[in-house]
Amino acid sequence: MPVVPVESSLFVILGATGDLTRRKLFPALARLVARGLVGDRFLVLGVGRSSDVDDGTFRATSHDIVESTQPRPIQWCDECVFYQAVRNGEADYQALRERIERIEREHGMPGNRVFYLALPPSAFGPTIDALGRAGLAHSPGWTRLVIEKPFGRDLESAQALNQTAHRYFDESQIFRIDHYLGKETVQNLLVFRFANAIFESLWNRDHVENVRITVAESLGVEQRAAYYEQAGALRDMVQNHATQLATLVAMEVPVAYDAVSIREEKVKALRSVAPIQPQDAILGQYTAGVIGGEMVPGYRQEPGVAPGSRTETFVALKLAFDNWRWQGVPFYIRTGKRFPERLTTIEIAFRRPPVCMFKSLGAPQMHSNLLRIVLQPHEGFSLFFDVKAPGDQVRLKALPLHFEYQEAFGPLPDAYQTLILEILTGNQTHFVHANWVEASWSIYTALLREALDVHPYPAGSWGPDDADRFFPPGTHAARVIPSMAGAGQP
Amino acid sequence: MPVVPVESSLFVILGATGDLTRRKLFPALARLVARGLVGDRFLVLGVGRSSDVDDGTFRATSHDIVESTQPRPIQWCDECVFYQAVRNGEADYQALRERIERIEREHGMPGNRVFYLALPPSAFGPTIDALGRAGLAHSPGWTRLVIEKPFGRDLESAQALNQTAHRYFDESQIFRIDHYLGKETVQNLLVFRFANAIFESLWNRDHVENVRITVAESLGVEQRAAYYEQAGALRDMVQNHATQLATLVAMEVPVAYDAVSIREEKVKALRSVAPIQPQDAILGQYTAGVIGGEMVPGYRQEPGVAPGSRTETFVALKLAFDNWRWQGVPFYIRTGKRFPERLTTIEIAFRRPPVCMFKSLGAPQMHSNLLRIVLQPHEGFSLFFDVKAPGDQVRLKALPLHFEYQEAFGPLPDAYQTLILEILTGNQTHFVHANWVEASWSIYTALLREALDVHPYPAGSWGPDDADRFFPPGTHAARVIPSMAGAGQP
Repeated sequence: MPVVPVESSLFVILGATGDLTRRKLFPALARLVARGLVGDRFLVLGVGRSSDVDDGTFRATSHDIVESTQPRPIQWCDECVFYQAVRNGEADYQALRERIERIEREHGMPGNRVFYLALPPSAFGPTIDALGRAGLAHSPGWTRLVIEKPFGRDLESAQALNQTAHRYFDESQIFRIDHYLGKETVQNLLVFRFANAIFESLWNRDHVENVRITVAESLGVEQRAAYYEQAGALRDMVQNHATQLATLVAMEVPVAYDAVSIREEKVKALRSVAPIQPQDAILGQYTAGVIGGEMVPGYRQEPGVAPGSRTETFVALKLAFDNWRWQGVPFYIRTGKRFPERLTTIEIAFRRPPVCMFKSLGAPQMHSNLLRIVLQPHEGFSLFFDVKAPGDQVRLKALPLHFEYQEAFGPLPDAYQTLILEILTGNQTHFVHANWVEASWSIYTALLREALDVHPYPAGSWGPDDADRFFPPGTHAARVIPSMAGAGQP
Repeated sequence: MPVVPVESSLFVILGATGDLTRRKLFPALARLVARGLVGDRFLVLGVGRSSDVDDGTFRATSHDIVESTQPRPIQWCDECVFYQAVRNGEADYQALRERIERIEREHGMPGNRVFYLALPPSAFGPTIDALGRAGLAHSPGWTRLVIEKPFGRDLESAQALNQTAHRYFDESQIFRIDHYLGKETVQNLLVFRFANAIFESLWNRDHVENVRITVAESLGVEQRAAYYEQAGALRDMVQNHATQLATLVAMEVPVAYDAVSIREEKVKALRSVAPIQPQDAILGQYTAGVIGGEMVPGYRQEPGVAPGSRTETFVALKLAFDNWRWQGVPFYIRTGKRFPERLTTIEIAFRRPPVCMFKSLGAPQMHSNLLRIVLQPHEGFSLFFDVKAPGDQVRLKALPLHFEYQEAFGPLPDAYQTLILEILTGNQTHFVHANWVEASWSIYTALLREALDVHPYPAGSWGPDDADRFFPPGTHAARVIPSMAGAGQP
C-alpha cells in the first residue's frame, strides 16, 4: 500500500476485560504505539461490564500486558487509556457516547472512532444495535466497526447479523476480522500469484491436479468447550479460515490490487462453488490417544463436553469451483483438533507429465510437482520437483526448492498488529465482505442440516480411517520430513 | 538406465603418459575398479611414444596416481595394467595389435576394446587412420573409439576428421567426449525438463524472455598457450561446451529417453540456428588486472603468447533458434578467462506478468522469474520469485527457492568417471554425434572467417564495456549474492 497517514483516533474495545483483549489486541496496540505507527494522538477506551474497573485499574492491567513491548509505552497507557463500564441498558450506551465525546473534546480529537467487538458471538447483534441506537454509528470523523468471527452460525443467522449491521453502518465501515487474512503468508499469496508470471500461468485446470488445504491443530478443545460444543470444526474452521484460503487460491485476477476489486473476485469465486453434499464430506471426533509421547483424553472426556457429544472435531471435504478456470479440479479441505502436529498448509499439486520417459529405464515413479505454502508454524514455500539422483542410473527423487520467511526477513509481524493498522488506515482488502460471509454459509447449509455420522479417530492421528477418501493420502506430508532434513531445508 | 552389466574389456589409452591420463582418466578408472563397477576382468593398456617406459614403470606411476583411491586398487595395477610403446610407424601399430591379442589371450578376454585418444588434436586423424589400417577397428567383441574435443577447428577440418573416423568405424562405435555432458547437473537437465511438467509447460517462447549461458573461468591461459593461441575462446569453449548447453535447453521432447532419440533432437535443434553474423558477437582479450586481491598479467604477457596476439579470451554472442518453440527468444552465451569468479550457469529468464498490479501501491518494480541452474562450482537450482516483504506496504523482493546437489546427495561423481562407465556400457546418450559437431561448426563458420576486433578487458572484470549489448547486464548475478547470504541459501 502507499503510505497512508494514520489519523488520530479513539479505539473503543467492547469486551475490554476479556481474553482476546489481553492476549491479542492490547499487545498489538502497544507494539503499534511503541513503533509510532498510530498517528499523533491514539486513545483507547476499554468498555466492559464490570463496574469494579476504572481508568486506574485498567491502566494498571495495561502496564502488565505491555511489559515486554520495546520501548515500553507506559506513559501512553497512563495518558491515553480509559475505561468505561457498560451493561446492556440504553442509558449505559448514552453514557458511553457522552464519555467518548468528552474524551475527544478534552484531547482535541477529530472524532475518528473504531468500535472493536471483542465479545462472544451472541453479543454481536445486540451490541451493534445498541451502538446504532445510541447514535454511535456516525461521528464528526470516520467510524469503523470491527467484528470478530464467527459471523453467524448458519446462513440465516449470518444474514440477520449483516442486516443488523447494515441498519446502522455502511459496508465500507464494517471490518470483519478473520485473523488468517492478517498472516503475512496469506497476504503474500495474492502477491505471489500476481507478481510471478510463471505461477499464474500454471494456475488453472490445465496444469493443476488438485488443491489441498490443511488446518491442523495438535491441541484439543482446551477451555473452549462451552463455545465449541455449539460450533464444531465446520463452523469453527472450515466455513471461515479454510474457505478463505480456498477462495484466495481460486479467485480470478482482480482488475486492480484494491479492496473493492479483490473482495469482488473472492465473492465471485465462492459463488461458483456448488453446495456440498453429505457424501462429499466426513466428520470425526477425537478419542483418547498419544501426542508427542503424552496421553491425552478424548473429546467426550474434556471438561464441559457432553458425554454423548456429537460435535465434530474433524472435517474433511471436497469443494468444486465450477468455473472455467477450475472445473474438474478438486479443492480438498481437511481440519481438525488433536492432529499429530500444528500445521496450516496450502498444497497445489500439478499434473504429471503426459508421458513418463523414464519408465523403460527402470524409473517408473514420477511424482507430481507440488507447491507447498506453509502458513504455520514455519511460514514459507517449497516447490517439490524431481531430480535425477547422482549415478549412472536414472533414479528420480522428489526434492524441494525451499524458502522460509523467517530466514529471509526475521520475525514476522503478528496478524492482529497487521490488521489493526489496516483498520486504522481504512484498508478493507484483508477483511471479509458481507457477501462473502453469506456465499460461504450457502455452501455449507446442506451439510449443517444433515445429522452426519461422526467417526471416532484417536488423538495423534490424521483423522478417521475413511478420511483418505476425502483427502489425498499424505504422501507429500510424509515425504517432506526426510527430504527436508536431508536436502531442501538448511 | 537399467543396470546394464559391464562386460570384461581392455581399455587402451593412447597418450598414456600425458596430462589427461594422469589427472583425469587414471583416477576415474581406479575409482571404477575400486567400486567393482567395471566387470569381472578389466585390463588397461597404456600406449605412449616413450620406449623408456615398460609395464613395471607404468605400474609404478599408476600406484602413485591411485594412492588416494579407497580401497586402493594396487593389486589391480600390478596385475591388469600394461604398457606398449608406439610411434607412428605401421609396424608399431602391428606390434600394438599383436600385444593386444596376446594380452587378451593370456587373460581369456572376450575381445571387447576401448581405444581412448588422450592425444593432442593434431594426432587424432593420423592415429585413427593407423588404428584402422592395423585392423584394430573391429575385434572378436566390440570396439569403441573415444575422441576428446576439439573435434576439428572449423567445419572443414571437422568433416575431414569425421570422414577419417567413419572410414573405419561406424558412428555407433564412436564416443566423442565433451566432459560437460558428464556433469551430474547437465545430465539432470533433461530429466529436470521431462520429469517436471510445470517447467516443460513454461519452456517456450510464450513464457521465456531469454536464456543466458555463462561459462566463466577465473584462471588465465596457464600452461596452455601453445594450444590456446591457435584456438581462442570461440573454439575452446563456445562451439562445444556452451553450444551443448544451449542445445540441451532448446531441444524438443525426444520420442524416448535413449541415445538415438536424444541426439537426433539435439541435432535438429542446432540446425534451426542461423549462422551467427559478426554484428551479433563481441570478442575480448584480458589485460593485466586484479583477481581475488592479486595482480595478474595480461594475456599478451603470458608465457608462450605472441606480444601482438589477437586470440580472443572472451566471447559474448547471441544464438537464435529459429523454430516454433523459440522464435524471438535470444540465447545469450558469454564465456571468458580471468572473470572475477569461476562459474558456469544456465539462466532461464521468464517473461514478466502482463500487468503490474502493484504499481499504484508504490511497488513498481517487478522482477522476472528466473530459473538459475548452476553447473559449477556449487551444482544446484535456484528459482527466483517475488515475495511481499513483511509490513503493511506492498514491497516486492526477489528471493530464491534454492536447492543444492551436495546438500541433498553428498559429493557428486566426477564427469570422467560417469562418462567412462557409459563408454563401457555402450550408452552414447551423453556423447557428441558427428552431425552435431558439423551443425555446430556451421553456425560459427562466418564468425571464424571474419577478423573481428578483439576488445581489451581488465582481468577481474566481466568482459569488455560493450559486452552488455550481447549479454543482459548481470542484475541477477549481482542480486543473487546478497539474497543468497540473507535468505534462500541456508
